Amino acid sequence: MKKIIVQKYGGTSVANPQCIKNVARRVVATQKKGYNVVVVVSALGDTTDKLIELAKQITDTPSEREHDMLVSTGEQVSVALLAMAIHKLGYEAISFTGAQVGIITDTSFSKARLINVDGKKIKQHLAKGRIVIVAGFQGMTKNQEIATLGRGGSNLTAVALSKALGGCMCEMNTDVEGVFTADPRIVPKAQKIDYLSYDEMLEMSSLGSQVLQPRSVIFAKKFNVPIHVRSSFSKAAGTIILKEAKAMWEGVMISGVTLEKKEAKMTICDVPDKPGIAAKIFKILADAQINVDMIIQNISRTRRTDISFTVPKAELQKSLKTARDIVKKIKAEQVTFDENIAKVSIVGVGMKSHPGVAAKMFEVMADKKINIEMISTSEISISCVIAKKKAESVVKALHTAFGLDKKK
Amino acid sequence: MKKIIVQKYGGTSVANPQCIKNVARRVVATQKKGYNVVVVVSALGDTTDKLIELAKQITDTPSEREHDMLVSTGEQVSVALLAMAIHKLGYEAISFTGAQVGIITDTSFSKARLINVDGKKIKQHLAKGRIVIVAGFQGMTKNQEIATLGRGGSNLTAVALSKALGGCMCEMNTDVEGVFTADPRIVPKAQKIDYLSYDEMLEMSSLGSQVLQPRSVIFAKKFNVPIHVRSSFSKAAGTIILKEAKAMWEGVMISGVTLEKKEAKMTICDVPDKPGIAAKIFKILADAQINVDMIIQNISRTRRTDISFTVPKAELQKSLKTARDIVKKIKAEQVTFDENIAKVSIVGVGMKSHPGVAAKMFEVMADKKINIEMISTSEISISCVIAKKKAESVVKALHTAFGLDKKK
Repeated sequence: MKKIIVQKYGGTSVANPQCIKNVARRVVATQKKGYNVVVVVSALGDTTDKLIELAKQITDTPSEREHDMLVSTGEQVSVALLAMAIHKLGYEAISFTGAQVGIITDTSFSKARLINVDGKKIKQHLAKGRIVIVAGFQGMTKNQEIATLGRGGSNLTAVALSKALGGCMCEMNTDVEGVFTADPRIVPKAQKIDYLSYDEMLEMSSLGSQVLQPRSVIFAKKFNVPIHVRSSFSKAAGTIILKEAKAMWEGVMISGVTLEKKEAKMTICDVPDKPGIAAKIFKILADAQINVDMIIQNISRTRRTDISFTVPKAELQKSLKTARDIVKKIKAEQVTFDENIAKVSIVGVGMKSHPGVAAKMFEVMADKKINIEMISTSEISISCVIAKKKAESVVKALHTAFGLDKKK
Repeated sequence: MKKIIVQKYGGTSVANPQCIKNVARRVVATQKKGYNVVVVVSALGDTTDKLIELAKQITDTPSEREHDMLVSTGEQVSVALLAMAIHKLGYEAISFTGAQVGIITDTSFSKARLINVDGKKIKQHLAKGRIVIVAGFQGMTKNQEIATLGRGGSNLTAVALSKALGGCMCEMNTDVEGVFTADPRIVPKAQKIDYLSYDEMLEMSSLGSQVLQPRSVIFAKKFNVPIHVRSSFSKAAGTIILKEAKAMWEGVMISGVTLEKKEAKMTICDVPDKPGIAAKIFKILADAQINVDMIIQNISRTRRTDISFTVPKAELQKSLKTARDIVKKIKAEQVTFDENIAKVSIVGVGMKSHPGVAAKMFEVMADKKINIEMISTSEISISCVIAKKKAESVVKALHTAFGLDKKK
């Protein structure tokens, strides 16, 4: 049997009939190169939002089962139209809903988890020379109810099908050319990255790069599915994400610089420094559904300490209220907050074998007279919280300092 | 178990969220009266047309399988929104696609025939006190592919579910108050008919009354499913259609007067009158997919005859071309046609036991100096083709002559 490629096209790639025809041509071109092609598509442009808007006119609290029944129609429209467009070009294609093709999920409607994905039916149709088109974002519970996979669900469908079809290449066709060393709107010299490891991609996406939702990358890493992020409007190669292979990263210290401006910093001041106090604070914040990101606690010599953390700006008011309750409960002094911060990070598997990466990063900051407010590190990333107004110039400086301005 | 009612709501009854909320209130009110309610809904307003328009932008000849995949989403949106609206009122409801509820069809995509409809799953949910909502117009082939039932498909779904649920009442909620003795726009004194037999309804719908597609009535007759045609915007009773019960029609000679203006008359003149010639003519017309309605052949004394028939005006050009080919083939003289005709009919099971109904009809025509061009009769109807410009006044006169102006 010929090699299989799974191609995923997002909402902007199938925004209207003209775009769908473009996708059809790309899919057929791939088949002509000698591949068996499986296509996963999202809903047309803003279809999902429009359906949710309809539901809102009826109720503010739709049942999640019925929500899934409703929004899953968006992808069903796309697969049918894409099949028609491929037929029009004279090629064989057949469309399926997630349910029809055996994508089985649990019953957590609107954010369902995959239980099993069966590649058998798809393989039967591929063997007949057909292009197989599968609705993204959706599956079926064991009880035959329609369930959707939540944000980034179509990417997850694509990766899961790649796995089910033997770990074949999973192309994520999107509206950007790949993953870049930095946001090109901030750093004009930003370069497209040719190869990234799963872990680097995970750090990049959780640190502010919007290209891929972490969920599909975690799944791809677990089952070693190679991902190719590329533009659906160009033939150029994009970014290939795969298992860390030492040789590929030899000499590359860091892969990219990311910037996150959507967080605010909060500090609970003069906290009694006794065992269990941090646990208490973050348990209360978690119970209030607040997504805490970085956490810093200074070492204390006085049995009192300050605890700082970052939260999404969108949750700032809720967080402040909760933090003030915490201050009373634990007998701390007060809460302060700062909205004008940004988190600048460098990511790269190379830093594991290159000592001095952190020092170099701090040096760049010092040269620009920047005060670092918080630092946090993982094995393959270093993040600094600094004043927001200086963040973009720091991103540029780091991009240059780590040699990313020139194509590797 | 409580009595079951199947309620069908058409596209105009669920045209927007406001309408859907109205339907939800009606459904809940029915349940409160002590019934188990199963609801069948069509797609919102012009959704189906919009989907077909999208497909047209891609291809003029969509595959029928993919067409069904596409348009079946319309009803799926409706069922989910209606379930949400019923939940909002505080009642339990659950929505299903045709496939999920076990409506099995053959593989004639876009005009599929029902093979089997299973009421088991619906009964399980009814037994839990839920309102069950089923997407109209669609089912699933044995191979789990989505197939739609063609024009009037939602009505057929409703009748088939009534049958599967033990022959319960099937309410067709629509934008008219019921079936009328004539078109109220033509005959202001037209009355809503309380009861009609299946055969009368069939004659009425095939003779130009737009209320119910014949297909669902034929199915209802076959399985003796009672139908109640009523307005979804009023509480008034509509028209109940059921098996002919002599007592109910005692004294009622005719039930309604209908008018059909969408046909044209064609005549093939001077046809050699020999065995098999009519078969030959109508075989050629059928092969050209032309829907012939009335057929009249005069008795011939000269071994030559004229054959007249009516065809839909929309197919006139195609019919003329075909008829001219026929003239050559069978060595007839020529083809003539007349677009300015109308077919006026009277319908009623009562005419079986009342001799002289036809004579009375012709008398009304004669009083108005109208030339009858064609006559055709069935056991319960008489149709006359006359000049179109006089048709509406004839309908009014017949309505009066047969005593329909006053409520029975």
